[in-house]
Amino acid sequence: MKENSQITGPYVIGLDLGGTNSVFGIVDAKGDIRKTTAIKTTGFKCARDYVIACIEALKPVIEEVGGIQSIKAMGIGAPNGNYYRGTIEYAPNLPWAHDEVVPLAEMFSHELGIPVALTNDANAAAIGEMTYGVARGMKNFIVLTLGTGVGSGIVVNGKLLYGSNGFAGELGHVIVRHENGRSCGCGRKGCLETYCSATGVARTAREILESDPRPSLLRQLDPQKITSLDVSLAAERNDAIALEIYRFTGHLLGEACADFAAFSAPEAFIFFGGMTKAGDLIMNPIKEGYEEHVLPLFKDMRFLVSGLEGSSAAVLGASAVGWELLNN
Amino acid sequence: MKENSQITGPYVIGLDLGGTNSVFGIVDAKGDIRKTTAIKTTGFKCARDYVIACIEALKPVIEEVGGIQSIKAMGIGAPNGNYYRGTIEYAPNLPWAHDEVVPLAEMFSHELGIPVALTNDANAAAIGEMTYGVARGMKNFIVLTLGTGVGSGIVVNGKLLYGSNGFAGELGHVIVRHENGRSCGCGRKGCLETYCSATGVARTAREILESDPRPSLLRQLDPQKITSLDVSLAAERNDAIALEIYRFTGHLLGEACADFAAFSAPEAFIFFGGMTKAGDLIMNPIKEGYEEHVLPLFKDMRFLVSGLEGSSAAVLGASAVGWELLNN
Repeated sequence: MKENSQITGPYVIGLDLGGTNSVFGIVDAKGDIRKTTAIKTTGFKCARDYVIACIEALKPVIEEVGGIQSIKAMGIGAPNGNYYRGTIEYAPNLPWAHDEVVPLAEMFSHELGIPVALTNDANAAAIGEMTYGVARGMKNFIVLTLGTGVGSGIVVNGKLLYGSNGFAGELGHVIVRHENGRSCGCGRKGCLETYCSATGVARTAREILESDPRPSLLRQLDPQKITSLDVSLAAERNDAIALEIYRFTGHLLGEACADFAAFSAPEAFIFFGGMTKAGDLIMNPIKEGYEEHVLPLFKDMRFLVSGLEGSSAAVLGASAVGWELLNN
Repeated sequence: MKENSQITGPYVIGLDLGGTNSVFGIVDAKGDIRKTTAIKTTGFKCARDYVIACIEALKPVIEEVGGIQSIKAMGIGAPNGNYYRGTIEYAPNLPWAHDEVVPLAEMFSHELGIPVALTNDANAAAIGEMTYGVARGMKNFIVLTLGTGVGSGIVVNGKLLYGSNGFAGELGHVIVRHENGRSCGCGRKGCLETYCSATGVARTAREILESDPRPSLLRQLDPQKITSLDVSLAAERNDAIALEIYRFTGHLLGEACADFAAFSAPEAFIFFGGMTKAGDLIMNPIKEGYEEHVLPLFKDMRFLVSGLEGSSAAVLGASAVGWELLNN
């Protein structure tokens, strides 16, 4: 295409490596995604096969933007990603990285001949917010990703907090209920994720439908099949039970944020993921839960919804990890 | 004195500003305290009078080490100290800073003509450990001070974590019990401090003495007057109830550390304060509570007792804040 032959970069490849799809974007320095491509993440016997398939998918789009010379780096956001080591480690939802440590950054770097950085998906979201989103100009903030699980990226003094082993910021697994806590996939009980993930919201829905006798649109559904999307749709229609589910979820999340504030004194919490589409229906209970539980020292707090919502958010976040590599 | 006339510095003044005493040390670059002096912290109508009394006390020791030219900076560790602003803010235990913001760093700097840095006492302890104590060479660790309250200093990438407002690291006020939590001086319920401070241990003692019928040396005391020191003495004599009090306290503290690990992934927790004198009697329950509750990602953890115990620890920590000022 003529238009593309004029493109010279510099660009960075962003890879949003999800449990189902792997989405690539070729991103310019302004944060515009110039080209995208995608493959399924699953169906590969080993990480090597996955990387080969990725390279095959990338080749034509790389050519379209002027060849590999115009690409300066690659950034990957992946579950259980370790920034220090450039690895994916024991990722429960990735068959080819389930029981092992996969040096994915090195594998891509070897194939493409460019530097590659990898971090976990929530950290990529935090870097994306700082580079292109609502956290521009902020030095201290926490991103919470509310999806199948609850992830977090913590920024301190303008830098992602990785800690001693690269795994800092596992706030989805902070224990928020010490008595009768819900069982978590991690093997423990009472983790934040068991309440505030999409799965947690569905579970809360089933519990409240059983204990609260009020009528609800949700009663038309098979309780075992209720999803957080069902709750969201009912809440939008002012369904009392759905609103109660959000109230419970938001209060608990706000309460957890009060403890997180005592840790790193951020200037804002930024929420990312499907649940934030509910807007004030979830954000107001979060603020209420926070205000009820926070130390006066941390009263002044901003609660924001990601400025990068949509399918491109995670790709932009991943690309920002690549740009960061060039700037350090 | 002849010996002193040979001393030329450079030195830093460290001030451990406690609720009862203000202890000054003139510290050399190796961390040796060359001179000390002290005044009572209380008995002053206003911060101005306090500073004047401090300067009066300091004058002769400053002369003894070669005059103010040999002193390069001053560091202060103080309750409710704000590093960014150099202030003490609304410190409940300091009559002259109870209801106000006192710009103490500026006041000392004005009087002495040298740069002055101020931080809260637990942060000073953390900087002290990093400079002179068991955290030398560590980049990511958390100091927990177990005293009348529970304080914390969090180090991330070799730097104290201050957050957006200078008050990061209030881990004594993380809520560890959401149901039937103990009332805290901060006005909330279930704070870590209500269980793991000296006061919290005394409270646990009263509760366990009521609920556990076993004989105990502690039953000889007026329950309302039991202190954490009494518990410590009884525990050393293998008193079953005292050991149970430590087990409860340590488990709860270890459980809280498991959550802190998920936040900043430190390589070690360092405990500071009187309770650590109980050694394994408290450290083993902390480790057990941690191991039972921590995510596998953070299993590898070191639990250390401060290398700066003793009356000079806080002064050294404060002086380290002063040295840091010169190195930045």
